Amino acid sequence: MNEKEIIELFAARLGLQRKRMGLDDIAIVNAGSEILAFKCDMLVESTDVPKGMEPWQVARKSIVSCASDLASKGIAPYVALVSLGIPKGYPSSHIEGLADGFKAASGEFGVRIVGGDTNECSELVIDCSMIGRAGMRDRKIPSRQGARPGDIVVVSGAFGYASSGLKILINGAKAGEQFRKKAVESVLMPAPRQKFGIAMAKYFSSSMDSSDGLSTCLYELARASKVEILIDSEKVPVPAGLEEFARENGLDTGTLVFHGGEEFEIVATIPETRMEEARRYAKKMNLDLYAIGRVVKRGRGTVVVKTGSTRRQLEDRGYIHLG
Amino acid sequence: MNEKEIIELFAARLGLQRKRMGLDDIAIVNAGSEILAFKCDMLVESTDVPKGMEPWQVARKSIVSCASDLASKGIAPYVALVSLGIPKGYPSSHIEGLADGFKAASGEFGVRIVGGDTNECSELVIDCSMIGRAGMRDRKIPSRQGARPGDIVVVSGAFGYASSGLKILINGAKAGEQFRKKAVESVLMPAPRQKFGIAMAKYFSSSMDSSDGLSTCLYELARASKVEILIDSEKVPVPAGLEEFARENGLDTGTLVFHGGEEFEIVATIPETRMEEARRYAKKMNLDLYAIGRVVKRGRGTVVVKTGSTRRQLEDRGYIHLG
Repeated sequence: MNEKEIIELFAARLGLQRKRMGLDDIAIVNAGSEILAFKCDMLVESTDVPKGMEPWQVARKSIVSCASDLASKGIAPYVALVSLGIPKGYPSSHIEGLADGFKAASGEFGVRIVGGDTNECSELVIDCSMIGRAGMRDRKIPSRQGARPGDIVVVSGAFGYASSGLKILINGAKAGEQFRKKAVESVLMPAPRQKFGIAMAKYFSSSMDSSDGLSTCLYELARASKVEILIDSEKVPVPAGLEEFARENGLDTGTLVFHGGEEFEIVATIPETRMEEARRYAKKMNLDLYAIGRVVKRGRGTVVVKTGSTRRQLEDRGYIHLG
Repeated sequence: MNEKEIIELFAARLGLQRKRMGLDDIAIVNAGSEILAFKCDMLVESTDVPKGMEPWQVARKSIVSCASDLASKGIAPYVALVSLGIPKGYPSSHIEGLADGFKAASGEFGVRIVGGDTNECSELVIDCSMIGRAGMRDRKIPSRQGARPGDIVVVSGAFGYASSGLKILINGAKAGEQFRKKAVESVLMPAPRQKFGIAMAKYFSSSMDSSDGLSTCLYELARASKVEILIDSEKVPVPAGLEEFARENGLDTGTLVFHGGEEFEIVATIPETRMEEARRYAKKMNLDLYAIGRVVKRGRGTVVVKTGSTRRQLEDRGYIHLG
């Protein structure tokens, strides 16, 4: 079974498919008059930690993943727990590094770490679980299922730095000084789009973060909402220097943009009627807001990419572990 | 660094020592007018899963650990997330077993599993994080730090089944039919003392569960409360047949009772002035309540065991991973 199949099995067995949220989306629960957002994310060294990432950056990233999921729904983190699986003989200096990373992330993203658990494990595992206070009970939280025909697909930033950064760190791809710095930084020091999400979520009909890659993210929204999405490839923002980087390393730009991962941009849909207001508000808040396509019709969860006058179905391939 | 040292480092770095709860105790957080209890527990196959435990029992146990921590504070579970690290090639039937176990535990312990995360990992890892609604803001939750001189040390049940069960499952220790059944069941199908904790917590000045073993638990309470505890070994309830089991297998009864682990009894202190009422209430609720000792004075966290007229300091040895 691959990750998607496992998620589907668990969701079905636990009755999550009948609910508004999927197994891997944030959970929304009521507590008195308040709504809580509840999310966990497990980071595993062998699959989630690229070469060159320091222990404190690993710990920080485990917090980023949860904070980014909450940010995509417009929710600020409140408290977190960190469960650690630590290999036998893991150096003390690395353990101190992890502690430093949690402390740094706590300050940087405004989340109080209130406890945790430690265990011995055959490799380093960090599971972060986070609670966000999402407001009063009548507040609407965007799920993955709310995209409707006519909605505009928007993103918070450029795609391609993280996948390029991984190629540089893992495969030794060559890059110019400036591009290399930004690409590597986007891998080692990712940042959740908290300001964007918290400001803009009120306009979203559906949303999620792009940590499993842009294509996976678009397919997830299309499938959960039962719609067909059309993306205008020329409108997807890409970093300056991406094409040159791809050419020099014999890589495909489209793959770097659509099938990367570890990117913490927000991908959302906004009803067409609210788009003008959303644009004005983003400008006022000094935020980039890129419209990259639209929801064209009800459907079975297809994503089509338009480049000039040609259209092709986007390959549904991103960050699937296992299988 | 061993587990205790790691916990201390993290607690210090994250400022948790200045708070009421430690890193590994449940976290108490405010949400509007309510109090939430927040707890995580990581289960790692190589250290936490004894031979003979089926996948559905492993999943169930990951829920038991958190539910037991909440129960020791008198709090019922509300919602949980489950993060899974699954080895490559892990059989589908086992994955279905895990899903069945989560479903069973959800019904058995009254907790709604609202989401999770799946990853590939070199061994099976399950991290459960749980929220309990602990009541309104003025409710007092027993910490580990509230034991005071004069308090009575109480437990919810017998000690020795789980350690014996592990000896049977792992080392092939011999046992009579009846004892074997109960001992093995206490390992494979542990149950949190939810009824006991929820009924009795109003009397507790301090409490925790005994999942790391009775001695570790008593030392933890003594240290956190800065007191000296005196245990009357003859009053510690043990299973019928424990001495025979120990004798036949050349094991030490004291070790089986004090230095086991994986037991989910509740260990608490009750102020002497409230003890009579607590006894009456336990009887009314049809619950066993065993007084096994008392807090004798302020101190540095010592635990002394009295057997007849001899007294010796209890060895502080239980379930410490790593090191």
